[in-house]
Amino acid sequence: CVPYTARRAFSAQVTGSRTTDITALKVNQDRLMETLHQTCSWGTGKRWGSGPNDTGMSRLALSDTDKQARDWFVETTSSLGCHVKVDAMGNIFAVRPGRREGLATFAGSHLDTQPSGGRYDGILGILAGVEMLKTLKDHQAETEFPVGVVNWTNEEGARFPISMCSSGVWAGDIPLETAYNLREVGGGTATMRSELERIGYLGSIPASHKSTPMAAHFELHIEQGPLLEAEKQKIGVVHGVQAYRWFMVDVSGRDAHTGSTPLGKRADAMLLAARLITHSHRLATKHSAVASTGILSLTPGSTNTIPGHVRFTLDVRAPADSTVEAIEADLKRDFAALAAGENIQGLLDGATPSLPLEVSWRTDSVSPATLFHPDCIAAVRASAEAVTGDKSLVRDMTSGAGHDTVYASRHCPASMIFVPSKNGVSHNPEEYTSPEDCALGAQVLMQSVLRFDSMRAS
Amino acid sequence: CVPYTARRAFSAQVTGSRTTDITALKVNQDRLMETLHQTCSWGTGKRWGSGPNDTGMSRLALSDTDKQARDWFVETTSSLGCHVKVDAMGNIFAVRPGRREGLATFAGSHLDTQPSGGRYDGILGILAGVEMLKTLKDHQAETEFPVGVVNWTNEEGARFPISMCSSGVWAGDIPLETAYNLREVGGGTATMRSELERIGYLGSIPASHKSTPMAAHFELHIEQGPLLEAEKQKIGVVHGVQAYRWFMVDVSGRDAHTGSTPLGKRADAMLLAARLITHSHRLATKHSAVASTGILSLTPGSTNTIPGHVRFTLDVRAPADSTVEAIEADLKRDFAALAAGENIQGLLDGATPSLPLEVSWRTDSVSPATLFHPDCIAAVRASAEAVTGDKSLVRDMTSGAGHDTVYASRHCPASMIFVPSKNGVSHNPEEYTSPEDCALGAQVLMQSVLRFDSMRAS
Ligand SMILES: NC(=O)NCCC(=O)O
Ligand SMILES: NC(=O)NCCC(=O)O
Repeated sequence: CVPYTARRAFSAQVTGSRTTDITALKVNQDRLMETLHQTCSWGTGKRWGSGPNDTGMSRLALSDTDKQARDWFVETTSSLGCHVKVDAMGNIFAVRPGRREGLATFAGSHLDTQPSGGRYDGILGILAGVEMLKTLKDHQAETEFPVGVVNWTNEEGARFPISMCSSGVWAGDIPLETAYNLREVGGGTATMRSELERIGYLGSIPASHKSTPMAAHFELHIEQGPLLEAEKQKIGVVHGVQAYRWFMVDVSGRDAHTGSTPLGKRADAMLLAARLITHSHRLATKHSAVASTGILSLTPGSTNTIPGHVRFTLDVRAPADSTVEAIEADLKRDFAALAAGENIQGLLDGATPSLPLEVSWRTDSVSPATLFHPDCIAAVRASAEAVTGDKSLVRDMTSGAGHDTVYASRHCPASMIFVPSKNGVSHNPEEYTSPEDCALGAQVLMQSVLRFDSMRAS
Repeated sequence: CVPYTARRAFSAQVTGSRTTDITALKVNQDRLMETLHQTCSWGTGKRWGSGPNDTGMSRLALSDTDKQARDWFVETTSSLGCHVKVDAMGNIFAVRPGRREGLATFAGSHLDTQPSGGRYDGILGILAGVEMLKTLKDHQAETEFPVGVVNWTNEEGARFPISMCSSGVWAGDIPLETAYNLREVGGGTATMRSELERIGYLGSIPASHKSTPMAAHFELHIEQGPLLEAEKQKIGVVHGVQAYRWFMVDVSGRDAHTGSTPLGKRADAMLLAARLITHSHRLATKHSAVASTGILSLTPGSTNTIPGHVRFTLDVRAPADSTVEAIEADLKRDFAALAAGENIQGLLDGATPSLPLEVSWRTDSVSPATLFHPDCIAAVRASAEAVTGDKSLVRDMTSGAGHDTVYASRHCPASMIFVPSKNGVSHNPEEYTSPEDCALGAQVLMQSVLRFDSMRAS
């Protein structure tokens, strides 16, 4: 790995059989978009409009359709002259040799999607990486060191509930066994390990930065938020990612009849869960943070039975780790108090006291606040300014969402490039980024990789 | 049908081959309890204790285990000399001939249970009816008119979401097509009609009080509430049932990313649903009513996606129809206001205003407040006092839960008998009524039927 604090001069040249000014290399927008939409035939999701591409994606990690997309990735990058390796978490590293031996500079992201996601989250980053490989091949351009594209497994954490799960294992932050034993959400019996095995992506090399070190990691991603669009800007230079934690909260009361059980004799787990969710939002707001519940299930699930048990997820995010920790502590205290019948923030105003209930917590995932590397940030900014030709179209940003670059950045310099999301919407079938913005982002990604490669050489 | 307002003198005799003082006829407690627990082997539910009968029930309407219980009921009542008829809703009427032709006086209840229910709700009423038939046979007792036992289909409304569904069709209050087309909750494709057909209980006679009129309907049931136990009383003489309505509420917002979507750009359907449920409870409390949410599902169901859609049930009950109607009107107004961002009862205090959401309502079922018939109430009271030998052990009550007797009472005199529920708990595997109390209730049920029969004769 390149020494982590290294700063080097930048040379705007790729060296090779044909020495090319990297600003002259241009990605092919039509090819990029055509290939992107073609690969979206594996795992097509909800239709939201009448156009041929007006459908979302539902390509859960390690599903059959994820396997199809992976197979395509392996074949395509191999045919573009890459050596392809699959590690024990199914992460796929495709490396194109450079003039010299050495670690590769990677473009990385993920091919898995939300159950009801769009065509750009993750997918654009991989497809832009593949487009980079094609562009280099078109120009027979040789880089100084190898460059590569990496597809990380289960970035979304939607099927197996840890996000950036396999870059986390690669980084040594998530134990391999924890990841292997993750069960799919919704009560299925499949684990990450069983699904890796089933689809043939349980690779033989260790999932570790030690076995597969990287010179640097760049990631093109859609913003997934409203800022670039609101400011009519084109490229976000991402300096880091906010902190977040995922919790599973269990509320235990008592199943009882909805008609014959007086309010004072109830231990209504759904009512308490409703109060807890309402409260989590207020408390997060107070801390200028966000809290969200994306999954909730209850038992037994009958119109005339008060649920005795509710389980829900809580996703808490804030720029600083300390804020997330403070919210966690406050929520744990307040949830217990609400369960015991204390009137936190007037939530029990006008309510009949109920029987006490129990609340228990499990922490599913911790993603600390991350700052990216100045060299990579500088490479992205210089590329963004060069590609757009207009500084005012470029914006420094922090990411609200987690990305594999968070874990990559633990062991090599890294940064990210954001492009605008229409209406700021993501994790939604209607997620949209224009072809021009996708290509602009892909161009900045390629330049960032090549700049970094040149910088290492110089 | 006996003229609905008729009041007649009461004669404490059954007539027949052997004229028996009805107070001398005694149900067999051991046989009753043994048979009850035997039939609970069809659809055994959750274990909650270590005893042989310390398991609940999960015998959803028209399931394979419900078919087993039905088959047992048909065989048993046939072997006890009954004529058995099945109507188009799968209601099973078993009639034991009397000395004279005429309508039968029925003991009725249901063999279906909650998904996570107990061994007594409904089951006790049917088993006590069967025990009555056995006792009459033991004594070769002849009644003046026929007496019968009826098993009503899908009383719980747990699998197909209208409670007392098939007595409702019999009464003409629920259209046959509405009942037939009910789909099972939880997204399955089975309908009541397809399941009736599948298990062989789509009978050939119309489901109607016109085709199968009754002289009277008595129902023994567990109280499902805490009153009898708290007052150390043994028998509830049930004068009527409170009003209730079931609603399905749909909340529509927008799927979005939990990390990158600022609070002000969210339309978080789960957060709004949490506020609505919290509010429904407050409003019901204000009206001295109860409101409960027993089913809630959301989409898409991913930790890091703000749910764009939540659907939940709302079960609202109060003694008077006008109260339930007032709550419905208030909730419809307030839910819409909360969805639009109005700060009802401080629920939005300290919250960031969100994008507007939409709330829509569907009424699944309406069960008006019901008053039972004075003749039947009198028969139950007289029987309860005779059987217990102590007026202070008998209590007049209104039922918080709905029962098939509600619909039966639309077309013939009817009343109910309650026995104590341990801890007032029902719709819970731990539902419990002692063998002594079960037998006492069965004794009162039999006497009430025989008293009514004698009363008709005199
Ligand atoms: N970018 C993205 O949607 N990643 C999923 C991880 C997260 O929840 O932020
Ligand atoms: N008794 C009983 O549990 N019936 C179900 C109908 C209701 O919800 O009250």
